[in-house]
Parts: sequence; C-alpha cells; structure tokens
Amino acid sequence: MVMKASNTTERVIQHLRTVAATQMPGSRLPSVRHLMREFAAGPGTIQRALDHLVHEGLIEAHPGRGTFVAKQDDKERWQAADTAWQNVALGEGRFEPDALQAMVRLPPSQSLPLNAGYLPPALQATDLLKAATSRALRRSGYWERMPPEGMYQLRAWFAEGTGGAFDAREVTICPGTQSSLAASFRALANVGDPVLMESPTYAGAIAAARAAGLRPVPVPIDGMGVRPDFLADAFRTTGARLFYCQPTFANPSGITLASARRQKVLDLLGEFGAFLIEDDWARDFQFEPPPPPLATDDRNGHVIYVRSLTKCAAPGLRIGAICARGPALGRLRAARLTDDFFVPGLLQEIAFELVSAPNWVRHLRALRGALRARRDGMVAALNKHLGPCELAKIPDGGLHLWVRLPDGMSDVEVVRRCVRADILVGAGRDWFPADPPAPHLRVSFAAIVPEDADQAVSRLASVIAEIQDVSVGVVHSA
Amino acid sequence: MVMKASNTTERVIQHLRTVAATQMPGSRLPSVRHLMREFAAGPGTIQRALDHLVHEGLIEAHPGRGTFVAKQDDKERWQAADTAWQNVALGEGRFEPDALQAMVRLPPSQSLPLNAGYLPPALQATDLLKAATSRALRRSGYWERMPPEGMYQLRAWFAEGTGGAFDAREVTICPGTQSSLAASFRALANVGDPVLMESPTYAGAIAAARAAGLRPVPVPIDGMGVRPDFLADAFRTTGARLFYCQPTFANPSGITLASARRQKVLDLLGEFGAFLIEDDWARDFQFEPPPPPLATDDRNGHVIYVRSLTKCAAPGLRIGAICARGPALGRLRAARLTDDFFVPGLLQEIAFELVSAPNWVRHLRALRGALRARRDGMVAALNKHLGPCELAKIPDGGLHLWVRLPDGMSDVEVVRRCVRADILVGAGRDWFPADPPAPHLRVSFAAIVPEDADQAVSRLASVIAEIQDVSVGVVHSA
Repeated sequence: MVMKASNTTERVIQHLRTVAATQMPGSRLPSVRHLMREFAAGPGTIQRALDHLVHEGLIEAHPGRGTFVAKQDDKERWQAADTAWQNVALGEGRFEPDALQAMVRLPPSQSLPLNAGYLPPALQATDLLKAATSRALRRSGYWERMPPEGMYQLRAWFAEGTGGAFDAREVTICPGTQSSLAASFRALANVGDPVLMESPTYAGAIAAARAAGLRPVPVPIDGMGVRPDFLADAFRTTGARLFYCQPTFANPSGITLASARRQKVLDLLGEFGAFLIEDDWARDFQFEPPPPPLATDDRNGHVIYVRSLTKCAAPGLRIGAICARGPALGRLRAARLTDDFFVPGLLQEIAFELVSAPNWVRHLRALRGALRARRDGMVAALNKHLGPCELAKIPDGGLHLWVRLPDGMSDVEVVRRCVRADILVGAGRDWFPADPPAPHLRVSFAAIVPEDADQAVSRLASVIAEIQDVSVGVVHSA
Repeated sequence: MVMKASNTTERVIQHLRTVAATQMPGSRLPSVRHLMREFAAGPGTIQRALDHLVHEGLIEAHPGRGTFVAKQDDKERWQAADTAWQNVALGEGRFEPDALQAMVRLPPSQSLPLNAGYLPPALQATDLLKAATSRALRRSGYWERMPPEGMYQLRAWFAEGTGGAFDAREVTICPGTQSSLAASFRALANVGDPVLMESPTYAGAIAAARAAGLRPVPVPIDGMGVRPDFLADAFRTTGARLFYCQPTFANPSGITLASARRQKVLDLLGEFGAFLIEDDWARDFQFEPPPPPLATDDRNGHVIYVRSLTKCAAPGLRIGAICARGPALGRLRAARLTDDFFVPGLLQEIAFELVSAPNWVRHLRALRGALRARRDGMVAALNKHLGPCELAKIPDGGLHLWVRLPDGMSDVEVVRRCVRADILVGAGRDWFPADPPAPHLRVSFAAIVPEDADQAVSRLASVIAEIQDVSVGVVHSA
C-alpha cells in the first residue's frame, strides 16, 4: 500500500509512534477528534496516519472502541531473541545521540519550538528549491558516479563564499555540516587525542568528536569569543593539535570572535602546529556584517573551513563543504571517500541551480529580515518576562539566544516542565564539552514569529517561577 | 557561467583534469580532433569541456597553437604556503583511498572497463528513475527533516527483502553500502580491535575497517566459502567479536557459502559471542537462485544485514540499509545519526517510488539476463585466450570473475600494462586483507557486452604473454 504522506500526516505518525513506544501494549490512544484539534488537521489526515500505523502493526483499531497500542509481534520476537550477549561484545559506547536526536526530531505541531536548529517551513527556500529541481532534472548524468570531491561548479561557488581564502580545488562537497565535522575529526586526529572546543559549543560537534574517539577539552569564552590566554594554556598542557571553533555567531552563545583576538588565535595555531576547524554555519544569518572568515587571514593551512547550504535552504538539502589546503586536504578527501564515496549528483545539481538562481540573494535578504524581527521579538519578550535571567549577548546573527538561568536551577528540570507546558527548549548542558559552569537554556528564535514570542516566553517564565517558588530561600539569582 | 555538462563532456573534463594533473605546466594537450575520436564526440562537446577547464584555470588556450597545461596560480600558492607542519600534526594515516578511487572513477570512454564495480549506463534503471522522480516530486515534505532511521515505507521494503529475517523497525536507511559498512565497523567495534574477513574480500570493506582503526584478519576461503576450521581458529586466537562476510556471490571471488557450512558459521558466532556483518550486495544479480540470507537462520541478533539499492539501480541513487536487532540496533543508529543525521528525503522518496513501480521487477529480470550473457561471454573468452590462467569459480551471480595469474607474475604490472592497451582491470592484491597468497585479477563482466569480450580478453592475454616472454624460464604457471 503506497501512502502519499503529507507533512502533517508524517507529524501525526511520528507523534503516535512516540506514544506507542512509551506506553504499555493495550493502552488507549488519543481520539481522532483530539488529534484533529492537536494537529489542526482534518479527519482524512488523521485517518491516513492511523491506517498507516495499523498497517505497520504498531497500533490496533477496534471500531467503535478506539485505537490502542498493539501487542507487538516484534516486542515478543525481541523478547524471544536473546541478544544479551551483545552487551558484552559491544562494551562501552562512544555515541551520545540524545542531544542530536532532539535537534533532528520534528516538533509536534501544538508545541512552541524554541529549540529549532533548522529553519521552519515558512522560511525555507521552498519555491526556489522547486524551480531549481526542475532545472536540475533537465541536466544529464546525475545518476552516474560523481567525483568524490564533488561537482566542480558547486565547489567553485563554495570557494567564492570563502572571501578568497580557498579556490575550487581546495573544496570538498559533503552531505551537510554534521558529516563535514565527523569526517574532519576522524581525518585530522587520532583516537584518544584531545580536541579543544569553546565552552559552550555546538552539541553536534561534541558528539562527533566523542564518536571519533577524541577527548573534548573546554576552553572558556567571554563576550569577545575564545580567551587566548586559556587557549594557549590548553594547547600547552594537553598537546592538542586541533581546535574546533565558531568565530562567527557561535552556536549557542551568539558571540563573534573580536577582531583584536583573531591574530592572537592564528599565532597560537602556528606556535603549536595546530589545526582550527572553522565552523561558519551562520554567515548567511547575519543581521550586521560580521568579520570575514578567520580562514582569510590564514596562510599556511591551519584553518579548515566548514560551510553548509542546508541551514539557509532547507533541512533536506544536505549539502555542505570542507575547505582545506596541504596534506590535510588529501587526508580529508580520503576520509570522505571511505565514508560514503560521493554526494548524490542530483542533490549537487539542485544545490548548484538553487544558488545560481537570481532569486537566491533575494531569499537570503528576506530570510535575514525575518530572522532579525524574530530575534527582536524574542529579546523583547525575554527582557519583559525574565527579570532574574541573564542574556549573555544579543547576537548580530544566527538562530539562538543563550539564556542564563538562576544559580542552582536545573536546566533539565526547566526543559522537562516546559514540555508539559507545550514549549520545547534546549538544556544548556548539552552544549558544554565538560562540566557546565552554570545553568543555561538555548532559546531559538528561528521558528517563533514575533507575535508568538510573548506567549512563548511568558510560559517559560511561569515554569521558571514555579521552580523558584518551590526552592525559595535556597536558590539565589545570578 | 552555468555549464550544462553532458555525460561525455564530464568524461572529457575528467580525462583532461587527470592529464593536467600529471603533466608539467606548459605541456601541450591532445588536439580537439584527437579528443573527438577518443571520446566519439562532436566538436561542440569537446569545446565545452575545454572552455570549462580554461574557465577553471587548469588549462590555457592559445588559438592557432593549441591548448596547454596552465601555469597554475594555485600550484604557486601552495608552494608559497608552508604546510609542512601538517605532516607532523597529522602523523600516520589510516586511510587507503587508492583502490576506492579506482572504483569510483568514471572510465575514459576509449578504454574497455573490466574493472566496473557499478552497472554501466546501458543497464542502469534510467527510465524507471525518471518516472520515479516525477512521482516523488508530487509528494510533499521531502525537504524537511526525516527520521534518522529513514522513511518507514522504504524500511518496510528493505525488510521484505530479508526474507522475514527483519521487520521495518529493525531497518536503518543509509546512503549506500559503503556508508553502512563504515558505520557498522565504527559502531560494533573499537579502535585496535581485530575484525575477521574472508580472504579475498571487498576492498571497500577493508578500507572502511582500517579507517575505523580496526585490524583486518584474513580467514581463507575455498570453493564453498569461508573455511569454518580457520574461522574458529581466528576467533579463538584473536578474540575478535566481528566477522565481515559476503555469503552470497562474494566480491571478488564469486563464491557462495555452501549450505552445509551455514550452521557451523552461525554456531561459531554463538560460541564466541560475535557479530557477522552480512554484506548481501549481489542478491539482485542472481543467475541461479542463491540460498536465503544467512540472517534468516539467526535468532539472537548475531547477523547484521547490509543491502543496497545503488548497485542494481544507478550509482547516483545512494540508498542502502542496515538491519539489526538488540542493543546493536541502537548503537548503529547512534553512529549513523552522528555521521550525517539522515538521508535526504528526496532520495528516499525516489527510491521508494522506484521499487514500488510495477516495472521494477521487470528491470531486475532484464538486468539479470543481460549480466548472465555478459558473464557467459567473458568466461568463453577467458577459456579461449587465457590457457595458463585459472578461473577460481564460475559464479552464479554478481558482476565479477576472479582470475588466477601465473605464479610469480605481478598483478600490478599486468594492470599497468593493460592501461596502455586501453583495458582497465583490478589488481587482485587490493582485495586481500593481508598478504596476497597468489597473484589475481578481478575481471568485471558488467560493462562488457558479449561481442566485446573476445577483444578485451585477447588484449589482456597479449599483455600477460608479453610479461611471460620477458620472464620466461623464471616463472612457472600455477
């Protein structure tokens, strides 16, 4: 049975799958009427989702009585299978998928997603992608093998975006930033090696570094970015040869490396013979022009530059690039080749058609305007409702705000209570490579239109006040 | 400048790029007339390729005099950049891309490709893909985030193909087999661990295992597949918990694990608490029905099953699946998530539409017929021209023949001389996890129509005879 799943159908399916996975076999599922209200969907959409899950064997429909979590054959099969031996064979794990899973998961439609790492559908380049796909399909050869380093024209486009730091021959196309980071950590360091990271930093980078067997070492930042004195100390004491860094609109702090510090950071790379992975994920989300990539000031191949199209186009256009020179370029290409040979030609053609379209620049301009308005709305709401919380910095770009919680408050507790209040927000601890020095939330403004910001933050403020009331007299604000 | 590159243009570009990379700046390139002949292409196609490379700065055109390898700015820039420090920072490498690069590279059109690891364009599911793409584009949501484990319907389809060994919830969609293997080696073992492999085995698996920091341990095979006595010995002496295996039409040997040995292999997995990665890449290329997947006889989650759509559809449709149960499933999904989040929705939708089309089964049937005829043509030619060489086994499926060369002959020397005779063939040593016990060639019949087989093998025979003449009296045939 072929089901044409709409986006909403897929959301309902995903929601019910989570419900079925967490409830006992035989539990009653929400009614069709309830789901219609929760997902603002018609009865047909809900019914398609239910039919799908019945077909899948995950739920059982008893007409007149409702739908129920199925007594799963598979659960039985898994219980019958004795896979306990695997625990011994697998041993200790290196993978920490929880924070990543939260990033990738589609939010249930009734929640206010203050945790969005991607553009919401309304801001995605949907129409441009449609047109780009039509043009790409008129080309030929995209089902053939591609060069492992990627289509030349697309590499040339990424090279142009580096402000002259790299040319097309130094660019390698990857299926998105996560894959660029995973390949870079594997290619540029060995298991057990330390890797320096700003603290806080991107949770996906921490997970990729750990999966590669590296040991993340936190280097504190302040309002001007990474602190060079601590960076020097960390290079000296750990012998690290690798520093993962977001010099521009860092996720989650929103901070940009100050001009005064750029040369000092580059000098340290030279002094310690080290690589810096520059993750420039947010350059397209600039509200004020940021400094050029750090890579433009690098002569001798210290800076590996990572950029993505996925963030500013749509989550499903998984196209990014790694730029490097010297032996590191060969090492990175070999790692990418071993990982998955090459990025599918069709996606590369679509990406190239997308960024070559005259409307692409207009899309980016409109996008920046919309995001800036959302940032302003969220900042105003935070100032209004969250007196005792501290906003580290109002960022000039990116998708997130980094909010300090009162000392002693559990970020995880806030996040858990927020879920009950239909708000999704990120617990700050996921963004620290080691011990969180203080509780924080990552509040994304990307998916919250300005009109909704007040409501979202007032709900968040209630949750925080609720926790404070309980522990009054024990917790002091920062 | 947007260039609409045809397949041939892309081939010419790739060819000239190789020429430019290997010759001195200032060297003259082949004339337009020569390239037209070599690639059976019109002057427009050749000119487009040249224009492209001029634009790229790789070659220089001097009207009336010809085209030349450019004095590259970049070569100069790289020379000016001092990246020598990187050699110290990078240290010893784990990546061995040479054999993989040869697999992925498009052959120059004048050569007879006896090294094809993919279907040639004529056998690819081109029309079906076109129709599937049109249908997929009518769906919605494919530019959104996908579940990291993949689209449910596609997982259900892969599950059906396992003959009941797995169900949809045990399937994880990957961007092709190479990525499935890379993720499996990383998820199921730790750096420094041994991994048992048939000897010979798939070169891409050897490369992926080494890149994951594992130590491949060869286990000899005979005409019935892996030898259980050696397998037991290898488990015992190395403590390995992982065995990479191709029970069906193994690449490169063509051998299928005999029914009599299946239970013995499974018993050893139980005895030593080990995983077996079953790479079932060639099931769709069966000329005689093979036994069901080994996974169908496994109860307790010892067999991790890997399958691909890429091989039987087209190289650019990078879709495959890993099937597993128990804690290993969670570990594999976490590894995949950390690698690149999820496979693009558009490709998954196209893949699902492709395999749901009524004509898909007809495509597979026609494909098998064509491949079988090519196998027969190649076997006849080998028997006719290569008396002293030994064909290990006439395989009942797959894409390759495994040809024994006379003792003492260098497979690499044969391959090098073949290139000069416009034949591309694989040196056997790339398929051995450790020391090659004897020289072999991997001869692919996939891209050679039966009428060309005689010419291809007679050229190959001349090369071998040429080497034998030189070393006569020293080399004895096997």
